[in-house]
Amino acid sequence: MLIVAALGGNALLRRGEPMTAENQRSNVKRAASVLAALIGEGHSVVITHGNGPQVGLLALQAAADPEREAFPLDVLGAESAGMIGYVIEQELGNLLKDRLFATLLTQVKVDPRDPAFAHPTKPIGPVYDEATARRLAANRGWKIAPDGDKWRRVVPSPRPLEILEASVISFLVERGVIVICTGGGGVPVIARDDGSLCGVEAVIDKDLASSLLARQLKADMLLMLTDVDAVYLDYGTPAARALRRVVAAEISAREFPVGSMGPKVSAAIGFVEATGKPAAIGKLDDALAIVKGERGTTITTGP
Amino acid sequence: MLIVAALGGNALLRRGEPMTAENQRSNVKRAASVLAALIGEGHSVVITHGNGPQVGLLALQAAADPEREAFPLDVLGAESAGMIGYVIEQELGNLLKDRLFATLLTQVKVDPRDPAFAHPTKPIGPVYDEATARRLAANRGWKIAPDGDKWRRVVPSPRPLEILEASVISFLVERGVIVICTGGGGVPVIARDDGSLCGVEAVIDKDLASSLLARQLKADMLLMLTDVDAVYLDYGTPAARALRRVVAAEISAREFPVGSMGPKVSAAIGFVEATGKPAAIGKLDDALAIVKGERGTTITTGP
Repeated sequence: MLIVAALGGNALLRRGEPMTAENQRSNVKRAASVLAALIGEGHSVVITHGNGPQVGLLALQAAADPEREAFPLDVLGAESAGMIGYVIEQELGNLLKDRLFATLLTQVKVDPRDPAFAHPTKPIGPVYDEATARRLAANRGWKIAPDGDKWRRVVPSPRPLEILEASVISFLVERGVIVICTGGGGVPVIARDDGSLCGVEAVIDKDLASSLLARQLKADMLLMLTDVDAVYLDYGTPAARALRRVVAAEISAREFPVGSMGPKVSAAIGFVEATGKPAAIGKLDDALAIVKGERGTTITTGP
Repeated sequence: MLIVAALGGNALLRRGEPMTAENQRSNVKRAASVLAALIGEGHSVVITHGNGPQVGLLALQAAADPEREAFPLDVLGAESAGMIGYVIEQELGNLLKDRLFATLLTQVKVDPRDPAFAHPTKPIGPVYDEATARRLAANRGWKIAPDGDKWRRVVPSPRPLEILEASVISFLVERGVIVICTGGGGVPVIARDDGSLCGVEAVIDKDLASSLLARQLKADMLLMLTDVDAVYLDYGTPAARALRRVVAAEISAREFPVGSMGPKVSAAIGFVEATGKPAAIGKLDDALAIVKGERGTTITTGP
């Protein structure tokens, strides 16, 4: 089976853990052993990953001098993809010494008229007091929004339309290469009127980008790995219950809060409805059992 | 012809220019138009590039809080390769809209017993006053060295032994994909006793890594592009004279100061002696004429 496996930010850095090179590497090691087991079962795996804590750190470092012009988000996203992809490639390579790997920079086309550009909602980077946030917003043209009693920069999160390197990824998969790509949802780009591309200040949801990639690669399964064991109805309430198998037409991403499983469920439905193939969501350590349908939540076209 | 084209740091950022996203992009645009012309002549081109100013900036940002643990150099190198590779891929893609591109993370094996590890010589990152440099050296285990009246961190620059992604790069070249790789000389890794790889705190010379890549890919030419029009004997003196065509056996890299053409000449000789194919050194804007033998310095096995 060709599986697109998306590693969530929370699968790469445990909640609350400080973002250090050491923590990142020890979490990647854990993810690598899970992915190696999946590949050991004979599956072809294309690996995607989040970049939330890493791009936050890069933005924090770049903003250490608040008057110095920071690099734009497309460039920071490309940096974080190199940084995380390298560690995944190395640690997985150490477990699968006879395999070939490719960590690929990925550009993702978005629509310049996507409504997200008028209504940025995705918080990134450090928190500021209100006065600093307002000054930075004025100096740099940032949008800002309250986050608890502090303020943060918010950026657009437009819908991904096309993974531009998909055919290159397909060549590599055909040759048996294990590909790591679409890091942090990929680098968002728009086409100008003359057809040329340029990067935009946005962040693409990693699960939606992985769903699109799985469609473009004609994958047999989209597997989203996080630190929660399944999709729950009424999560966080006494009535919470895990969904084990569910038909895409019978659920809607709107039932799940945006900060929780919403984007994953939406990504799953998108893949299942376009391809008729299953999508699954669950805990990193359960990956093998999830693929076998024994753990996690599997979303399909029919029972 | 299959050409490995190495873009020098000084071809990507003019000497003295501040390292901003805008300057980087405008220089990459200039390089892209040169590379597009080369590809337009029918050549297959694999592009490598330096990362000096970029990795310096990342190290500077990471060191903005001198007591905070900075990410190691292998990780910063991977970041810079993503950052620069992305901009090259995008700008070259805008000139060659019907071609496919791959920007690939590249690991380069070095010998843990390389004498460079005992004698680090390559300065990186910001300059410090002596007291700060000595405190950072003590806290972080850095080696430091004087640089004019200031001090800088120095790191080892070991000899590259193997480009680990070379066969993946070959697949892609065979399929007509334009590959951007070995950014900043690639990420230096060593093999532990059990054969597993780990990154090391070092920086690999980009020209030596490009020479090795050209050998592994069986390229027809190694082309090193910089901001000087040729290799000169007695450079900077009234007796200076440009070399046009020279036989590898008749020159030695030792004649050229390390800070100038030394590593390029050494990289050229290595490629020419191993393959019998030519290597050339010259100015970015002259690339087409250099490949035709009309400009720059061409180094061959015989007249």
